This record gives sequence, structure tokens and C-alpha cells, in this order.
Amino acid sequence: MSRKNENQCDLIMFGALGDLAQRKLFPALYQLEAAGLLAPKTRILALARQDLDTDGARDQLSAKLKEHVKSAEMDEKVLARILSRIDYLKLDFATTDDYVGLRQWRESGGGALIVYMATPPALYGMIARNLKQTDCIDAATRVVVEKPIGHDLESSHEINDQLAEVFNENQLFRIDHYLGKETVQNLIALRFANNLFASQWNQDHISHVEITVAESVGIEGRWGYFDQAGQMRDMIQNHLLQLLCLIAMDPPSDLSADSIRDEKVKVLKALRPITPDLVETHLVRGQYTAGTAAGKPVPGYLEEEDAVRGSTTETFVALKAEISNWRWSGVPFYIRTGKRMPEKLSQIIIHFKPAPHYIFDPDQKHLANNKLIIRLQPDEGMALQILTKDQGLDKGMRLRQGPLELTFSETFKHARIPDAYERLLWETMKGNQYLFVRRDEVEYAWRWVDQVISNWEEHASPPKRYAAGTWGPVASIALITRDGRSWYEDA
Amino acid sequence: MSRKNENQCDLIMFGALGDLAQRKLFPALYQLEAAGLLAPKTRILALARQDLDTDGARDQLSAKLKEHVKSAEMDEKVLARILSRIDYLKLDFATTDDYVGLRQWRESGGGALIVYMATPPALYGMIARNLKQTDCIDAATRVVVEKPIGHDLESSHEINDQLAEVFNENQLFRIDHYLGKETVQNLIALRFANNLFASQWNQDHISHVEITVAESVGIEGRWGYFDQAGQMRDMIQNHLLQLLCLIAMDPPSDLSADSIRDEKVKVLKALRPITPDLVETHLVRGQYTAGTAAGKPVPGYLEEEDAVRGSTTETFVALKAEISNWRWSGVPFYIRTGKRMPEKLSQIIIHFKPAPHYIFDPDQKHLANNKLIIRLQPDEGMALQILTKDQGLDKGMRLRQGPLELTFSETFKHARIPDAYERLLWETMKGNQYLFVRRDEVEYAWRWVDQVISNWEEHASPPKRYAAGTWGPVASIALITRDGRSWYEDA
Repeated sequence: MSRKNENQCDLIMFGALGDLAQRKLFPALYQLEAAGLLAPKTRILALARQDLDTDGARDQLSAKLKEHVKSAEMDEKVLARILSRIDYLKLDFATTDDYVGLRQWRESGGGALIVYMATPPALYGMIARNLKQTDCIDAATRVVVEKPIGHDLESSHEINDQLAEVFNENQLFRIDHYLGKETVQNLIALRFANNLFASQWNQDHISHVEITVAESVGIEGRWGYFDQAGQMRDMIQNHLLQLLCLIAMDPPSDLSADSIRDEKVKVLKALRPITPDLVETHLVRGQYTAGTAAGKPVPGYLEEEDAVRGSTTETFVALKAEISNWRWSGVPFYIRTGKRMPEKLSQIIIHFKPAPHYIFDPDQKHLANNKLIIRLQPDEGMALQILTKDQGLDKGMRLRQGPLELTFSETFKHARIPDAYERLLWETMKGNQYLFVRRDEVEYAWRWVDQVISNWEEHASPPKRYAAGTWGPVASIALITRDGRSWYEDA
Repeated sequence: MSRKNENQCDLIMFGALGDLAQRKLFPALYQLEAAGLLAPKTRILALARQDLDTDGARDQLSAKLKEHVKSAEMDEKVLARILSRIDYLKLDFATTDDYVGLRQWRESGGGALIVYMATPPALYGMIARNLKQTDCIDAATRVVVEKPIGHDLESSHEINDQLAEVFNENQLFRIDHYLGKETVQNLIALRFANNLFASQWNQDHISHVEITVAESVGIEGRWGYFDQAGQMRDMIQNHLLQLLCLIAMDPPSDLSADSIRDEKVKVLKALRPITPDLVETHLVRGQYTAGTAAGKPVPGYLEEEDAVRGSTTETFVALKAEISNWRWSGVPFYIRTGKRMPEKLSQIIIHFKPAPHYIFDPDQKHLANNKLIIRLQPDEGMALQILTKDQGLDKGMRLRQGPLELTFSETFKHARIPDAYERLLWETMKGNQYLFVRRDEVEYAWRWVDQVISNWEEHASPPKRYAAGTWGPVASIALITRDGRSWYEDA
């Protein structure tokens, strides 16, 4: 194989006309094409139940690409190139006969075979079995699956078992798209390439950590689906625990996928259960009521379309996570995520401990700790809050808190920040699993989440109400102020 | 005394029509006036030998102020206010009878009395004695004196003794104008208010430190004066050793002048002598030859106006200083300063040690140490060099070195950065000695410098030549590369 075709692959996409594929996957493939990263012979097979031929499918994909790729980034030549790689096959996922066309298509190609299941997880097992039965796959095939892997430990076991019947763990690429974000990967470089941080990344030097993932949207027409899950399963179990793992993990000996994932699993295993006696102080569930979003009135969770009265599903969770190991003992991780917050904001704040002795103006003592702010969105980047002398003769030795700033969009002026799916598709093509979630990660995350949910259900208090457009229930403020701290607010 | 007059003083300036007073001191007083920091009743008495009356002196000062204050900052109303505070007295420094007018002037005023000796140091003793003899001063009088305090330990003793006959140490404000620079003071805030740095400020975490003070100018018409001194006495003994002290000192228990100066003295006492066996490896003296400055040809040191052939005075010094104490054992401080360098540049670079283990691309290992860059000029500010993941899908986990930036002029957008003399005059008015050099500091600095000079004289090798417009003799590069390091160059 020529070097140009090093990453050649045949990508088979189940659910190719669905929402995820249209909004994220094909636009990501377009960008890989634009960046010249697709090998000349790489091909894509779109699978769906619609009765289309390849030309018809290309027309439809073309229209959607023009809708979802920024117009400034849309280039007709690139569009033509990516479309020319795409074939379409009508296929009923349940009908093994339909898979014959798939095998024939594959036989005419080469390179690695990647199967992307952009379908509901309930179908993973069936698709896997059918692929095997029709001899479409081999031990080198890579399979990409989307979250959620189940809704609790037991159901995730079931899905993972079904996949494991057909594939080995090293063939499975479980997506948590947060891991594809530039800033999230940057956590690895930031933590382990900078000894200034690496040497202080522990309970000796860090007092506490905040992780906030705030959504401004509400339910977006999927009330029924969401109400079965709730914010704990929908956001904490995957995205927020992944972020927590990347922040908290011990340094891996190397950058191999398993070295990194071994360390992440250690964190999940060390997470202190939120036992019934801790629910009151360590956990706040919330549900939004009517309020505002972007200045306009919006309904409460129970008034949304399709809402069922009396639901006690949480749209907000704040919790105090503790990690029972040598690195983090005594360092709380305050985590919160909710819908209908005032803004879309994901950030991690590392609060370093203050110096042992303070010699500046007594009324500024509260300022005197360094903070590292890692912004996932908006404006991916990081800022280190440090203290300098305030300017101006009359200020004497007054302190001033100011950021040392690194905003990726400014730093890398000529490079666009790739979308998470571009990165994840690219790593799949290269066969690198380090940005994908291993089975034991999923399962240890569920184990912890399950016990939290079961304990709060025992506790039986309904979620606290918060108005849409606010930062969650008052109790979530109390959760952190009880420890003499507060949620970070940008000045 | 009303609060407005809290810092009221009578400022008596000897040498008021001299270069320093005209270029620096009156412009600084103008700025203090503009900032509203001068108490309503504060008065200034200009003393010089010229036969002028107050109106004549004001006219002359007015013209000079318009020359030396930036025109954008010149406000006729402020100018009128500062001039109205100034009286002039013709005075021969040596003639005690002349001091009577000075005493009479003082008797009509109030607040603290500040005597600023903007004269050659040889006159300090005489002026002090005459002030005492004519009863112009008391135990509360503050005296500001300029460097150089002598040209070696013995002569500095003499000057300090003469001053000490009349004044107590707590009345003496010895200026090293570097200590008035915003960024230099910021070292105190940076080091002791930020535990991120404070906790790593030692030999465990820092590999070495660089201090560069490069001048682009040559001798500027003062060949005879400079040739008696040389760069070691003219720059290292004061400015560079002061910077070294501020970087290296142990944390003071409080911000009082003596707590800070006690710690600085400890550093000077712990400086390892550059004994004869170390001269070869630890010290490089240079002298510039003809070359270029700002694109134009300029003469060598020995071809300057008034130059004496065969002078072996150094216009450049690079040295490796070592501090024999618990904090800095094994951490060299590479120091260099010279005239006719390619640019005017003062900066301090703290090189942090790399992480104990390296897991990124082997060919990038040399990048993997954090650096804190403290710029005194140009663009006062600081930058922390950290490593992040390089952007772009095809970069994988490649590292990129980038700065977290803090440029004071950008951060404090609406505040001008005060000139060092503004700060120093203001602190004198407030009676705060922390930015002034204590007697033992001067003397320990001389003691170390004297032994270096005496050892190189014994060594008897002439200074190495370097072309004007270069970074000094090749040997100064070797001084640091011998240790497997290099002088920091901004990318």
C-alpha cells in the first residue's frame, strides 16, 4: 500500500440518513476531505431503509452538507470529491439478505473496514450479528458505536455482551464526543507535558476542582426520551465523568490507548459512593420551571410538548464527588450540569491552594489562590489566574487578579478548530482507540451512577425547582458554599 | 494635618539644573502632580549654582519639562501647578552661608523634609555636613542619594560613613532606579502571592535562571567616566545584582522594608565567589569593536570620542553566578549585560525543570520545560511558556510551545506605566524604604564584585572583542552551552 493510502478504509455507515449522520458525520467527512486526510481510495457506503439510488442519496447528502457545513468553508470541488466517494445501499438492518449487497460492495474495495453504527443502541447487537452471519466482517474490522451504552449497569452489560459476541474489545470504538474536543485532548498535553502543573496536580497543591457543563437549551422535542434518562444518565455518566477522569487520572506511563484508559478506570473505581447519609450534602437534583431563554419566555420542564405531569426526572444535577486515592484525598470535585442554564458553557476550574503565608493587604487575602480555567466552550482555550501588583502609584502593593490567556482560536490563527467528530473519525481511520471509551470505563461509570440514583430514589425527595435561565436550584449554591467556597464566576 | 496633606513634604533638590533632575526628577514630579498625588502644601526648592531667580528657574524648568514630558501627557494647567510649587535658591554646595536661605525657606513650610542629592556622590558627605552644621535638618529628614555609592567596597564605605555621620540608616533612601520599575516590583507580587510559583521557586523545580540587561547604546559621550568603571561596576554591581536578589531571595515574613532587605542581603552573602580557578568557566568580559547600531556603522569602544588607546575596560560581562544556599544549590544564574547589543532588552527567564517522565514525541523532548519570562523592557509584562497540543488533526499528540501572555500595557489599558522615578519619589514622600538599597546591600554587592574584579585582574586576559550590534563575544555563548543550555531567544 502506498503511503498515500496508509489510512485507506471502507466506511460503512448504518443510519446514514439519520440526524447524527447528517448533522455531524458527513460534515466531519467533508472536513477530512477538505484537509486532504482521506486516502485516495477511501470509500463510504451509506446504509438506510429509504428507497434511493446512489445519485439520489448523493443529492440528499449534498443538500444537507450545504446546510450543515459553514458556507465560508463550503467548496464545491471538495463537495464533489466527498460525494464521489459515497455509495448508497438500501438496507433493512434486520434482513440478512440485504447484507449481501454490503459484502459485495466491500469485496470491490480495500483497506480497513469501519462500521459506524449511527443507530439506536438497541440495534447494535442485531447489526453485529447480521454482519457476522453474512460474512461482512473480520477480526480487523473496526466498529464505532454511539452512547448511550445502556441506561444502567445491567443494560450496558447487555449491549456490551452483544457486541462482544462478535467483536473483540480492540475492535470497538465507543464514542463520547467530548473526548474529541480539542481542549479535552489538550488536558493530556497540559497535564503531562508541563511540569509546572504536573508537579502540583495533587492534594498538596489543589484545594478543589469545579466542572460545569451548562446547556442553554431545554428538551428540544425529545421529552419522552429524556424523561426516561434524566441529566444524571444523559450527561454525568458519560461526559462529566470522562472530564473528571482526564483531570484526576494518574500520569500514564505512555500515550497508548490502554495506558490512558487504565488510569481513567482507576479513577472511576476510586470514586466514593454517595451513600444515603451523603445524599443530603453531596447531591442536588433540579428540574426547571418556566422562565426565560435568550430573553424570551420558555415553558417549564413539565409544560414542554409531550410532558407527563408529575415527572420527577432531573434536568439539573450538582454533586460533590470525592476520589478516595492518594492523589485526591480531601479534594472535592464539584460537578454541575443542567438544561436551560443562562448560557452554553463548559469549563473546568482547578483551584490551587494559596501560599502557606500571606503578606499582602489583609482585605485581599481571598484573592490569593491561583486558578487554572479550562474552557471547552465557548472560546476553547485556557486561562491561568495569577496575582500581580496593581498598576498605579497610589495602589502601593495592592494585588490584582488577572489572567494569563491562551485562546486557541487566537493562538492558532490559521487553523480552524476541528469538530470533535472529525477528530474521532480520523482516529478511527488510524485505528487509535485512545479517544474512545473502553468497556470497563462504561461499566464502572454506570456502577457509580447507579448507586447514586438508587440512593437518591431511596431518599425520595423530588427535584428542586429552578427557573429556566438561572444557574440551577439555590441548593446547588449551598452545596459548595457549605464548604466555604463558591462556583467560579468570570469577572 | 488633614488627610489631603498626609504626605505633605518640602523637597529640596541639590543639582536641580543638572541632567538627572531635568530628564527624570522634574518630569516625575510633573506626573505626580498630574496624578493628584502631591499634597496641596508640598513645596519644592531647586538648588543650583546658577544665578537665577525663581521666575528664571521656572522658565528654564518649564522649557525642559516640555522637552522631557511626552507631549500627549503635557497639560498646561498641571504644568502651571507644579511650577507654582517650585522655588529657586542659588547655592554653592560648599558654602555654608548659602545654606541659611535654605533654612529660612524650610522654616516657612511643613511636613516631611526630603533632601534629594542629584549630585556626584563625592559631594554627598559635604552637603550632609553643611546641612547639619546649618541646622537645616533633623532626625526625621529623608535623604535620597543616587548611585554609584563608590566604585569598590572601600570607597562605598567612605561615602556611607560620611552619610552615617549625619543621618541614620532609616533616613537614607539609596536609589537603584531598577527597583522603581513596575515589573521589578511585580516580582514581589508574582513570587509571593502566587503559590503556583512560590511552591516551585527552588532547586527542586527550577533548573536555571537567565538575566539579560542589554543596552543598544554605546558610551554616549561619557567615555572617561565609563572607562574608570566598566560594565561590572556600572551595571552588575547594582541593577543586575538587585534583580538577582529579588528573584533569589527567600520569602520575607512581611513586606516591611527591612524584612525584604534582610532577605536580599542573605542572597548577596551566599553568592559564591568567582575564585581564580572559576574565572575561565564562569566569567566572560567583552569590549565592542566597530559594527552597526540601528543599521548604521558605529565606532568601536577604543575609537569613541575621548577614548584612550589600549583600555581593557569591559563593555560587556557574562557570568555564571551560583548561590550557595538551600534554595538554589545547583541552580546557575546566567547573567549578561553589555553595551552596543542588537536591542535594548531587559528580561529574566526562569527555566523550570521538565517533568520526571516524558511521554510525547521523542523529537520534541527538548521543548518540554516551562519557562517564565519576565520582561522589564520593552513591553513590560510576563509570559509563561507552556506546552499544549498542536492544533490540526494530522498533528496527533504533537506538542506546541506557546505563551500565556500578560502584557501590562494591554492589561492595564487605561493606566500609564509610571516611570521608575515617579514611584521612587512617591515612596520617599510616603517614607517607605522598601524600594531603596540598604547600606549592607551596597557593601555586600561590592564585596562580591570586588573579588570578581580582583580575580580577573590576576587572570590578566584582555576582554574578548565583539562587534557592535551583536550579542557579545562568542565566549559568552560558550559560557552557557558548556552546560548544555542556551540563552533564551524569543521565537
